[in-house]
Amino acid sequence: MVQQSFQLYDTTLRDGTQMAGLALTVDDKLAIARSLDALGVGFIEGGWPGAVPKDTEFFRRARTELDLRAALLTAFGATRRPDVAVSQDPQVRALLQAETPVVTLVAKSHTGHVDRALRTTLAENLAMIRSTVQHLVLAGRRVFLDAEHYFDGYVSNREYALEVVRTAAEAGAETVVLCDTNGGSLPEEVKAVVADTIAMTGAAIGIHCHDDTGCAVANTMAAVDAGAVHAQGTAHGYGERCGNANLFTVMANLVLKRGREVIPLERLVELEPTGRVIAEVTGIPRVPAAPYVGTAAFTHKAGLHASALRVDPGLYQHIDPARVGNAMRVLVSDMGGRSSVELKARELGYDVAAGSDAVGRAAARVKELESRGYSFESADASFALLLRAELAGHTPPAPFGVESWQVAVDGDGGAQASMGLRVAGTPRTATGLGREPVHALDAALHQALDPVFPALTGLRLTGHTVRELAGDRTAPPSVRVLLSFRCGDRRWGTVGVDRHATGAALTALLDAVHYVLSDAPERRRDTESLVAAPAG
Amino acid sequence: MVQQSFQLYDTTLRDGTQMAGLALTVDDKLAIARSLDALGVGFIEGGWPGAVPKDTEFFRRARTELDLRAALLTAFGATRRPDVAVSQDPQVRALLQAETPVVTLVAKSHTGHVDRALRTTLAENLAMIRSTVQHLVLAGRRVFLDAEHYFDGYVSNREYALEVVRTAAEAGAETVVLCDTNGGSLPEEVKAVVADTIAMTGAAIGIHCHDDTGCAVANTMAAVDAGAVHAQGTAHGYGERCGNANLFTVMANLVLKRGREVIPLERLVELEPTGRVIAEVTGIPRVPAAPYVGTAAFTHKAGLHASALRVDPGLYQHIDPARVGNAMRVLVSDMGGRSSVELKARELGYDVAAGSDAVGRAAARVKELESRGYSFESADASFALLLRAELAGHTPPAPFGVESWQVAVDGDGGAQASMGLRVAGTPRTATGLGREPVHALDAALHQALDPVFPALTGLRLTGHTVRELAGDRTAPPSVRVLLSFRCGDRRWGTVGVDRHATGAALTALLDAVHYVLSDAPERRRDTESLVAAPAG
Repeated sequence: MVQQSFQLYDTTLRDGTQMAGLALTVDDKLAIARSLDALGVGFIEGGWPGAVPKDTEFFRRARTELDLRAALLTAFGATRRPDVAVSQDPQVRALLQAETPVVTLVAKSHTGHVDRALRTTLAENLAMIRSTVQHLVLAGRRVFLDAEHYFDGYVSNREYALEVVRTAAEAGAETVVLCDTNGGSLPEEVKAVVADTIAMTGAAIGIHCHDDTGCAVANTMAAVDAGAVHAQGTAHGYGERCGNANLFTVMANLVLKRGREVIPLERLVELEPTGRVIAEVTGIPRVPAAPYVGTAAFTHKAGLHASALRVDPGLYQHIDPARVGNAMRVLVSDMGGRSSVELKARELGYDVAAGSDAVGRAAARVKELESRGYSFESADASFALLLRAELAGHTPPAPFGVESWQVAVDGDGGAQASMGLRVAGTPRTATGLGREPVHALDAALHQALDPVFPALTGLRLTGHTVRELAGDRTAPPSVRVLLSFRCGDRRWGTVGVDRHATGAALTALLDAVHYVLSDAPERRRDTESLVAAPAG
Repeated sequence: MVQQSFQLYDTTLRDGTQMAGLALTVDDKLAIARSLDALGVGFIEGGWPGAVPKDTEFFRRARTELDLRAALLTAFGATRRPDVAVSQDPQVRALLQAETPVVTLVAKSHTGHVDRALRTTLAENLAMIRSTVQHLVLAGRRVFLDAEHYFDGYVSNREYALEVVRTAAEAGAETVVLCDTNGGSLPEEVKAVVADTIAMTGAAIGIHCHDDTGCAVANTMAAVDAGAVHAQGTAHGYGERCGNANLFTVMANLVLKRGREVIPLERLVELEPTGRVIAEVTGIPRVPAAPYVGTAAFTHKAGLHASALRVDPGLYQHIDPARVGNAMRVLVSDMGGRSSVELKARELGYDVAAGSDAVGRAAARVKELESRGYSFESADASFALLLRAELAGHTPPAPFGVESWQVAVDGDGGAQASMGLRVAGTPRTATGLGREPVHALDAALHQALDPVFPALTGLRLTGHTVRELAGDRTAPPSVRVLLSFRCGDRRWGTVGVDRHATGAALTALLDAVHYVLSDAPERRRDTESLVAAPAG
C-alpha cells in the first residue's frame, strides 16, 4: 500500500554534520543530496542558512545545481529571538532567502530550557513559535516544527510541552516533530508520549531520535507504531554524540517489517549502494556490522552456520540481502572448515566438488597461514590464489620475480621506490613515485610490468590497512597488510604478512598482480574490505 | 534494590568471536575474561570446548590461570547428536571436561531447523534436549538452555517452541534463553513472545538478541520489561553479521534507566575503561559514537550546544558521563565559535576570560587552519599550542629546528631516517629506525633531543591516521596526519597537514615535542583520538 502521507526526512546535511570527524564541503553536500534523492527520501534538510556560512552557500548553489526528482529541500533554523519582531530577525530572513519549499524551525518545548538556555518567559517562547510559523506560512513555505527536548520537557511539564505542539499546529505548522534531543529515552516511554500527544493535540506528529541509549531506531519504530507520520534520521546514523537514528535502518525496517512504502519499493535495492557512495563522500569509516548495508551484515564465519547456509541461506539470514542491494558472504578462517572453504570457492566461481581433497588441503593451508598472522577474511584474491594452487596440485610458475627493492622518503615530499626484477627471464629495473612506500612500489611494478602484461593497466590500488601482530614464544612480532584493489568494475583484496609493513605490502601487491595475470574465471562482484579502513 | 537473581551473561568469547575481523589468542581470551569479571558481569561464556581447539585450551588454562571473583565461567555446546546416547557423545564429554560450574546448551526450537539443519524428528530433538540437560545436571552442573531461532520458531510453530522450553525446564535447565538468532525481530514482537512464553511455561526466561534490525538493545530491554531474568550480549556488541546486543549499553540502561542493579553499582564507573581495555586486546577499531563508552558519546561540536553546556552540562547530556567512567568533551571546529574555544580552553586547564580577545583570535585561527585541511578535533596538543600563542600574543621561540630530513625503506625491512637539526644554535645530525617513516623520524628526534631535553624521554607515539584531502580550485591535494601520544599518564594528539604524508607526520611530531617542552599547565586527563584509528 502506498503511503503517500508518510514523511521520510533526512537530516544528514544538518544534524548529521555535528558528528565528530565529519567535515563536508559544499560539493560534498550536493553529492550527498543527489544520492539521497535517488534513493527516494522525501525531505532533505540541507543545513542552517545564516548561521553556518557553508550552508548559506549550499542553498545558493542548490538553486541552480541541484535538480531533485523525488525529495523536497528543507532549510533549518530557529524561531525568532525573544522580544524581536519576526520580520526584523536576520536569521529568519536567511531562512526565507534559502528559497526552499519547506522550512523546519526548532523551538524549545522544555520549560527548563526556555528558562536557562533561552532566558525568556514561557509565554514569549510560545509567541516566538506562533509568529515565526505564521510568518513563514504567509511567505508560502510548508513549515515543520522540531520540538526540541520534547520527551524530557514532557516529563518536566507535560502541559507546556503539549501547548507548544498545539501552538505550532494552530499557527500553520504541517507536522510537529518530537525530538529526543539528549537521546535518553527508551521505546516504551516514546510510544506512550507520542500516543498521548496525538490524542491530546490532534496534530500530525513526527519523531527525531538520538542513539544515546542504543535505541534510536527502536524509538523511531515505536513512535511510528504509535501514530507518527514523519520520521527523521541520518545516513549511517551520523550525528552528534552517539548519532541520530540511522535512516537506512529505519526505512528498511518500515518497508520490510511493517510493509510501509516509505520510499518507492523498487528503490530499496539502492540502499547498500547509497550507503557506500555516501561513505565515500564523507570519508567516515563504514561500520561493517551496520544493519542491512554493512559489509558484514550478511557475512557468516561460524562453520556451523556455513553448513546450514549450504542448505538454505534463509536459515541464518532474516531477509534476502539482495532486497537491499547487499550480498551474502562467507568468511574463510580457522573458525570455518571445509564447508566455509567450499561455499567461498563457489562464491568465487569455482566449481568444487563437495568434500574433495583439494578443499580439505585448502582449508588446512588456511588454518596454517592464519596461525602465522594471515587473515583471508578481506583478501578474496589471495584466497583464490591459494585455492587455485590446491586445485591444480602445485603453485603455477611465476612469469616474473622481484629480486631487490628500496624506498626513500624525504623532506621534498613523497616516496620513491627502486626495484630490481626478472621478467620472463630478463633482468629489469624500475622506479616509482607515490605518497606512501606502498604507492611507490605499486608504481614501480606497473612501470616494469604493464608494457609486458597489458592486463595490469586496469589494476588500481584503492586502500590499505596495517595491523601490528604481537609476537609470542614461537614467532617474533610481525605486520599484516591488507590491500584493496579495483580492476575494471570488480573490487577485491589481498593480504601480506612480514616483519615490516613495507615488506608485507609488497607481498600483498604481488598477490594482486599474480591474481590479475592468472586469468581467473571468477564472476565475483564487489568484495569490499570487511575491516574499517582509513581513506587512502 | 539489589537484584541478586538477575543474570547478566557475556558471550564475547564465544558468540562475539564470530565477528568478521576478530581473532583472539587464548591469552587474549583470558585477559578479556579478567576484565569482564572486574566489571561485575555475572556469567562469562568462555567458548565451545571440543568444537574449537583454542577453546578447549582456554578452559584448560582457565582452571589454574583465571581467578574469577564475581563471574561464573560457562562452557557452551550443543545437545547430543540425534540417535546417539548422551554418554557416548564426545562433544558432551568435552563440555564436562571443561569443568565449569555452568554449562549452556544450544538446541533447536524451530521445527524448520530441526527438519532441514538437524535432519531429525521433532520428538528426537526434544529427547536430545531432555537427556543432555539431565546428564549435565546429574554431573553437578548448573545448566542454561539457549533456544536457537526461538522467535522465528514461535511464529512458525508456537506449540513446539513452547514445548522445547517446557522440556528443558522440566529436565533441570535453570534458565531457558530465547534467542533471536537471525536478528530479525522488533521490540513489540519480542515483548509479546516473552510474556506469552513466561505465562505458558512458568520457566525462568533469558534473552539473546542480534542487531540485524538495529534493535538488539531495545529487544533486550523489552524482554526484561516483560519478565526476562537473564540477558546475554557481548562487549561492544561484537558478533556475527550485525553483532550481538551490546552488553555495555544493556547494563548501563538497566542500571541507569530501570534502576536494576545488574552489576554492583560501584562498578559502573568501570564501564568506559573496560571498553577501552577490551578494544585494545581485540584490536577492533572502537566506534566513537557507541552509547555510554564511545569516545564521542559525550562529545559536543555544535556551537549552540557549547553555549548551553557552559550554563549546565545536563542541558545536552542525558546522564553525567562520570557515572560510566566517561567524560564530556567539546570539539573545536569551524562549527563551534568562541564558546567552543572557551570551553575547550577551560577543559585544558587555561583560565580564560569569557569573551576575551585572545579567545576570539584563537577561534578565527582555528577556522582559517580548518579551511586548509587542519582538524583539531583529535589534536588537543596542537590546539593548546595555538591557544597559547594567541594568549601570549606571539609564537614562543623554538629551542630547536629541523633543517633537513630523509627516510629510506628497503627490502631488508623497516624505515631509516636521517635528519639535520639545529639545537640551541648548534648543528646536529641524528638517525632513527622504525617500522614506518613516522616511527623512524620519531626515533631520530628522540636521539637528537632527549639528551638535551630529558622531559622528552617519557613521550611515546601510540598511533597515527592518515587522511587524503582532495584539492579544489584554490589548493592542491594534501594529506592530514593525526598522531596520538602518551606522556606519563596523559594521552593527547597532534595534527599536521602537508603535500605528503611524511611531511605532515613530521609537522605533527614537532607539535608533540614543542608541547612537552613548553611546560604546559594542563590538568587534562586522557584524550583519545575521536576518529577510529587502525592499531599502530
